[in-house]
Amino acid sequence: MEKTGARKTKWVLKLKSSVTWKAIRKAISSTMKKKQQQQQHFHLTSASSMKIKPSPIRVHEGAVIKPNLRTKAKKSASHCTKSLAQLLRLPYSASDFVDRGNHMTPTNSPKENISTKWHDIHGLCNWEKKKENLLDPLQPWLRRELVKYGEFAQATYDAFDFNPLSEYCGSCRYNRHKLFEELGLTKYGYEVTKYIYAMSHVDVPRWIEKSFLNEMWSKDSNWMGYVSVSNDEESERIGRRDIVMAWRGTVAPTEWFNDLKTKLEHIDDDDQKGNIKVAKGFLSIYRSKSKLTRYNKLSASEQVMEEVKRLVRLYKEKGAQEISFTIAGHSLGGALALLNAYEAATSIPGLPICVISFGAPRVGNMAFEDKLGEIGVKILRIVVKQDIVPKLPGFIISKILHKLHVDTRVNWVYRHVGTQLKLDMFMSPYLKHESDLVGSHNLEIYLHLLDGFLCKQCKFRWNARRDVALVNKTTGMLIKELRIPQFWYQLPHKGLVLNKYGRWVKPCREPEDVPFPFCEAS
Amino acid sequence: MEKTGARKTKWVLKLKSSVTWKAIRKAISSTMKKKQQQQQHFHLTSASSMKIKPSPIRVHEGAVIKPNLRTKAKKSASHCTKSLAQLLRLPYSASDFVDRGNHMTPTNSPKENISTKWHDIHGLCNWEKKKENLLDPLQPWLRRELVKYGEFAQATYDAFDFNPLSEYCGSCRYNRHKLFEELGLTKYGYEVTKYIYAMSHVDVPRWIEKSFLNEMWSKDSNWMGYVSVSNDEESERIGRRDIVMAWRGTVAPTEWFNDLKTKLEHIDDDDQKGNIKVAKGFLSIYRSKSKLTRYNKLSASEQVMEEVKRLVRLYKEKGAQEISFTIAGHSLGGALALLNAYEAATSIPGLPICVISFGAPRVGNMAFEDKLGEIGVKILRIVVKQDIVPKLPGFIISKILHKLHVDTRVNWVYRHVGTQLKLDMFMSPYLKHESDLVGSHNLEIYLHLLDGFLCKQCKFRWNARRDVALVNKTTGMLIKELRIPQFWYQLPHKGLVLNKYGRWVKPCREPEDVPFPFCEAS
Repeated sequence: MEKTGARKTKWVLKLKSSVTWKAIRKAISSTMKKKQQQQQHFHLTSASSMKIKPSPIRVHEGAVIKPNLRTKAKKSASHCTKSLAQLLRLPYSASDFVDRGNHMTPTNSPKENISTKWHDIHGLCNWEKKKENLLDPLQPWLRRELVKYGEFAQATYDAFDFNPLSEYCGSCRYNRHKLFEELGLTKYGYEVTKYIYAMSHVDVPRWIEKSFLNEMWSKDSNWMGYVSVSNDEESERIGRRDIVMAWRGTVAPTEWFNDLKTKLEHIDDDDQKGNIKVAKGFLSIYRSKSKLTRYNKLSASEQVMEEVKRLVRLYKEKGAQEISFTIAGHSLGGALALLNAYEAATSIPGLPICVISFGAPRVGNMAFEDKLGEIGVKILRIVVKQDIVPKLPGFIISKILHKLHVDTRVNWVYRHVGTQLKLDMFMSPYLKHESDLVGSHNLEIYLHLLDGFLCKQCKFRWNARRDVALVNKTTGMLIKELRIPQFWYQLPHKGLVLNKYGRWVKPCREPEDVPFPFCEAS
Repeated sequence: MEKTGARKTKWVLKLKSSVTWKAIRKAISSTMKKKQQQQQHFHLTSASSMKIKPSPIRVHEGAVIKPNLRTKAKKSASHCTKSLAQLLRLPYSASDFVDRGNHMTPTNSPKENISTKWHDIHGLCNWEKKKENLLDPLQPWLRRELVKYGEFAQATYDAFDFNPLSEYCGSCRYNRHKLFEELGLTKYGYEVTKYIYAMSHVDVPRWIEKSFLNEMWSKDSNWMGYVSVSNDEESERIGRRDIVMAWRGTVAPTEWFNDLKTKLEHIDDDDQKGNIKVAKGFLSIYRSKSKLTRYNKLSASEQVMEEVKRLVRLYKEKGAQEISFTIAGHSLGGALALLNAYEAATSIPGLPICVISFGAPRVGNMAFEDKLGEIGVKILRIVVKQDIVPKLPGFIISKILHKLHVDTRVNWVYRHVGTQLKLDMFMSPYLKHESDLVGSHNLEIYLHLLDGFLCKQCKFRWNARRDVALVNKTTGMLIKELRIPQFWYQLPHKGLVLNKYGRWVKPCREPEDVPFPFCEAS
């Protein structure tokens, strides 16, 4: 970033007047545009010098490709998009998204037995092994695991009822027994054991989804995630019984990440010095409960800890030698994951705990950071360079302090924790090179970039396995040459179905999928 | 309409400057707003004096209502919307669109044998019978038939591939054998015998839908409708073998209805005086053909006439005593229906021909009107008062001439033909009382109003049978209290499906549903 005097003054001015979301947005947007222009130039010059195998038929690792079918499909593909794809040396072009036969590659990399490697994957040595960094270049087996946890977090969006015309708005659309089946995640070999609900006593804007209807399943609570556990087969493959908590976040950046509600608050009564502080809004969602509610007679914190303790006890009794607790979350979910990890590490000593967060904001102060390290929580913080949320709250303050050469190790500043894996949107040839504040925060963008990440200085992995079309599920970020509809993830007929009388009605939810407030543990 | 001097001047001024669509739109919009204010006042005052049976459980004609289920449903309905519905005495409230059991009424009125009445329905006496007007009050059996033909026309939209990312954009999504089954229209007892395609040599803006892709099923043609014929059972009920041509129109009013392309052109070489003239744009779509195309080696006109003649011959050979030809169409489709009727009446003498048009624009001049009457074509022109399209083209010119007391029976002015049935949007308690230029032209609005029409001075039929939710298929016109999503008619995941490898792809169309250019007759 250029250090012009003019800009410095601008930052300070912005700080002096009340720092608004709008102002940040504008500042970021102009910075991004410049970067983008530089990057586009870089991209075009580098594309021509790419050293990718020039074969017209790319053989994807492990894929069964019938050449004649491939040729047929290629032939019938649009000439325009094909030639563009060839020009840019993209493995996928528009014709790959038309279902023409057997030429599509499987979307998952082959499973590998990682039972001896799981400590490294779980960050025991902070993702370094004998001074070798596992993140740069990214180890293929680590990548697969990270994508797995990311997809567990993505499930909290995909199954969430966002429809304000539904009386179940804010709940999960499926019961826990069929969640993974409905979302195609049974392949990972986990079972959901409990759903977690949250409420907030602090008025945090836009974190909760509510029904427009007067009658609704809950007036206070939202489905906030789920606990799952690896089954026998998967446990054998990954070397331990893995308990996973996936926290739901917020799809788009919301203004409250940077507003006054994020002021720091004490997290722990045991912390007698009162040094350890975290953002008030996050803590409220994690800890709020009320006897008057149906789903939060216990707080989210109590619900998840109760379940984790039960599972640990259960599998110890069953003779499990090793058990781990992995907490995944995107955005707000990543923030809750840290609070969850802090609590679990203090209340279940000896349990290996790891947080995999995607686009999470800062949560606490320096003392919080130090304490997490002390109690042995391992944190992998995956961020996209262009995403604003990981820079919040305290983005501007940190920048200023840095520029003024002030030591930022003071206790009143929000701080990031753990190891960072930085992804760059401009790395992917499938994404538009446009600044998009909402799009660049989307979890599917994170998963796409993670899947294509080889190393910091490398090009996008040409044989990336994850379905590129998923990017446009709830964004419009794919280049238009791929001809994938934007924001395509939606219910048929906006949720209306034809009943037996030929009338279009909002279906009642299957009784088994109606949320049920009491103990859900299996 | 008030005849103030000021307004008169305004019209004239508008005429002198080039009359643009925008100007018309503005003028209409302001007129509508005023009307709306008047109507809203009327509606509110009249609602309180409505004399509808005040029973909380309305028994719908022929419906099986289990009171306890009904009560249960009522109980669980939103209090707010219920009380509003009660206040307005609406038979349906939001809770009726939630599928809670058996309390929904069937959507279709019971079928009645109308074999002795079909000549009246078909307009032999211009919808009058022994000086009794069948349209005011609207005869129930006539209403059912009109809705039937309207739904045949609606099918041309519902089955149309509007997706510009599809290579089949502009075609029908299903083959003719399953069209009615896919759309729930088998209940009417007709069979589709041929699909009709059209092209245009004149550059008519926005009448044709085209794929964004380079490779597409046809570069020139669009699916423009279909020929169907009543089966044995239905023929017995309606007293004759009924051949139906349903023409596709344009969903929204388009500017070309009023632009220069609508200049009058000779329709008939036999018309030696050259008096009979129709709009050039319509005629081009009806008559264009080219040997270089796949689907229009024959014009739409030739395709439909060939099929009608074949069917007439076939059923005469089979000993059918009576055969009728009914032509239905909405918007542009209504205009094509008139051209089709003109041709059919001149080339198949003695065949009873009837046009049921919905929101159709004017098509030809006075000589065209006279000729249609002379050759015995019966035309029922259903219009919604608030819809601008039936006033086009020549709306402003006709108004001016009328205001200046000039005889409008001159040959250079576009004229309406046939008998008019006028519906009023403000009549329905389910529709927003807002001016909506696009919404008020929608065929589903027409069908909703037709279904609720009793007589000019009557309130909306409280036991109307047609599904009210259909209104919001491609509009946002339903009052928000009903909680029906707006524009809800859409494919799941915008047409993407999960293939066997777990990738989201655009499905290839079933081979049986791929359009096939050659003879389709059965």
